[in-house]
Amino acid sequence: MSTRRAIVRLRAGQCSYVADEVAAESPLVLGFDGPGGAVLATLMRTPGHDIELAAGWLVVESGVRQPDDVRALRECRDDGTDRVLVTLRSGVRPPRPRAFVTSAACGVCSADVLDLSLLRTSPPRNPGWRVDPAVLTALPPSMRARQRGFDRTGGTHAASLARVSGELLAVREDVGRHNAVDKVVGRALLDGLLPATDLLLVVSGRVSFEIVQKAVAAGAAGIVAVSAPSSLAVDLAREHELLLAGMVRGDHANLYAGEDLLAG
Amino acid sequence: MSTRRAIVRLRAGQCSYVADEVAAESPLVLGFDGPGGAVLATLMRTPGHDIELAAGWLVVESGVRQPDDVRALRECRDDGTDRVLVTLRSGVRPPRPRAFVTSAACGVCSADVLDLSLLRTSPPRNPGWRVDPAVLTALPPSMRARQRGFDRTGGTHAASLARVSGELLAVREDVGRHNAVDKVVGRALLDGLLPATDLLLVVSGRVSFEIVQKAVAAGAAGIVAVSAPSSLAVDLAREHELLLAGMVRGDHANLYAGEDLLAG
Repeated sequence: MSTRRAIVRLRAGQCSYVADEVAAESPLVLGFDGPGGAVLATLMRTPGHDIELAAGWLVVESGVRQPDDVRALRECRDDGTDRVLVTLRSGVRPPRPRAFVTSAACGVCSADVLDLSLLRTSPPRNPGWRVDPAVLTALPPSMRARQRGFDRTGGTHAASLARVSGELLAVREDVGRHNAVDKVVGRALLDGLLPATDLLLVVSGRVSFEIVQKAVAAGAAGIVAVSAPSSLAVDLAREHELLLAGMVRGDHANLYAGEDLLAG
Repeated sequence: MSTRRAIVRLRAGQCSYVADEVAAESPLVLGFDGPGGAVLATLMRTPGHDIELAAGWLVVESGVRQPDDVRALRECRDDGTDRVLVTLRSGVRPPRPRAFVTSAACGVCSADVLDLSLLRTSPPRNPGWRVDPAVLTALPPSMRARQRGFDRTGGTHAASLARVSGELLAVREDVGRHNAVDKVVGRALLDGLLPATDLLLVVSGRVSFEIVQKAVAAGAAGIVAVSAPSSLAVDLAREHELLLAGMVRGDHANLYAGEDLLAG
C-alpha cells in the first residue's frame, strides 16, 4: 500500500532529512490465461487486492456481470511484473485486447507508458539553475489565486509553468489533471519555450508517474505539487534528476527529489 | 469552463433547489488533418484552450518538441463534436493512432468511452429504495475513518460500496481513483452482489464521466462523493437515474441527480 522514501522536509526555509511514506504505484498486467494469451491492459495501480481490481475492470470493460462469468483469475509474477491472468466463461463478451497502459490516475494511456525509451532523452540540465525555497512554497497559492474555474465549481484541477523568479506563465484548468498539464505544456511548445529547463511545472493535485512523464517530456526542471506523489513518481523524478516538491502548504514542503536544486 | 445545473442543496436535512456551476466536461477528438485522417485520441476535457491541449498531448505522445514540428492545428466542429486536426512536419514521429478515449481524469481509456451501448442496460431500479439524508452525509466520514493508506501517505483515493443502513462494505484505496472503484466493484462481483441496485458507491474525490460509467456498469443505486462532479457526470447520472451527491461535508451535500431517492 505504501513504501518508504528518504526525503527532505522543508519548514520555514530549514531542511531536514526524514523517512516518508508514499503511496505505492506499480504496473499490473492483465492478460488472457494460457499460451500466447493476449495482454488486455496494463494498469498503474497501488499493489494489493489485484484480483478484485481485475474483476472490477472486467465488469466495466467486458460482458462480465456474474461471478461465474469469470472462470478463473490467476495471480502470478513473471519477469518481475505482477500479472492477473483471466479465463472467462465461454460466451462472455471479452474486453478488447489493448496492450497499453490504462493507468491509475491516468490520462496517458500511451502505447506503453513504461517504455521510457519513448520519452526523449532529458535535455542537458541548466547547471546553474536553483530555486529559492520561499519562491517554491509561494507557487501553489500564487496559482490558486488564478484558479477561476475552481472558484466557481470546486471541480477542476490546475497546472502552470513557473519561472525561478516566482512568475507564473499561463494557468490552465481542466476536469482532468493530465489535461491541465497538457494545456500548459502545449502553450509552452507554441511559445517556443521547450525544453523548459528553467521552468517548474506547478500542479494542484497529486503527482503520479504520468505527471512526471509529462514533465520529463517537456524538459522541465521540476514539479511543485499541492498534494503527494506516488512511489513511481518519486523514482522517475530521481532518475531524470527533476526537483519534486509535494505537500506544499504554507512555508512547508516535502522534497521528494532534487533537493540539490534548492538555493541557499 | 463551467456550466450550470439545477441541483438540490441539502443542509442539515433541509432541501432547497439552487443553480450550481459544475466543471464542464466534453469530448475533444484529435485526428490527423485531411481526407480519411485517422483519429488519434478522444480526450474527455474541459472545453477551452483546445489547441494548447492538442499541442501538449503531442509533446508527450509524439516526436513533437519544437513549434515548427507542428505544421498546423485546426479547430473545427463536426457533427456536434469538437475536433482538433493535426498536421505534423514531415519526418516528425507521429503518435500511434488510437481511436479510443484517453480521457480527462481518466482510468477508463475504453475502446470508445462514449459508446454508451457498451454499458449494459441499467438493471431495473429497486422501486422502494430510498436513503436517509443523515445516512448519506455520514458515508464519507465513515469511509475516511478506514482510509489507512491515506493516513500514512496522503496520496491515495478510496472507494467503497454502502448499504442504505450506512454500513460500508470493503473500503479500497489506490493511487488511482478509478482503480479504487474497480477494486470495490470487483469485490462485489466476486461476492455475488452485482447488480448493486441497493448499494451506493462512495468515492473520496471528484466524479468524472468515467466514475459514473463504472457505477452504471455495476448497477449501483447512486454515488456519494466528497468533491464535485463534472457536467457530463451529472448528465450521465440523470440519464441512468442514479442518485449523485457531491461536496458532502458535515451535514451538507449537493444533490446533482436522483434527489427523489432521498427518504423523508
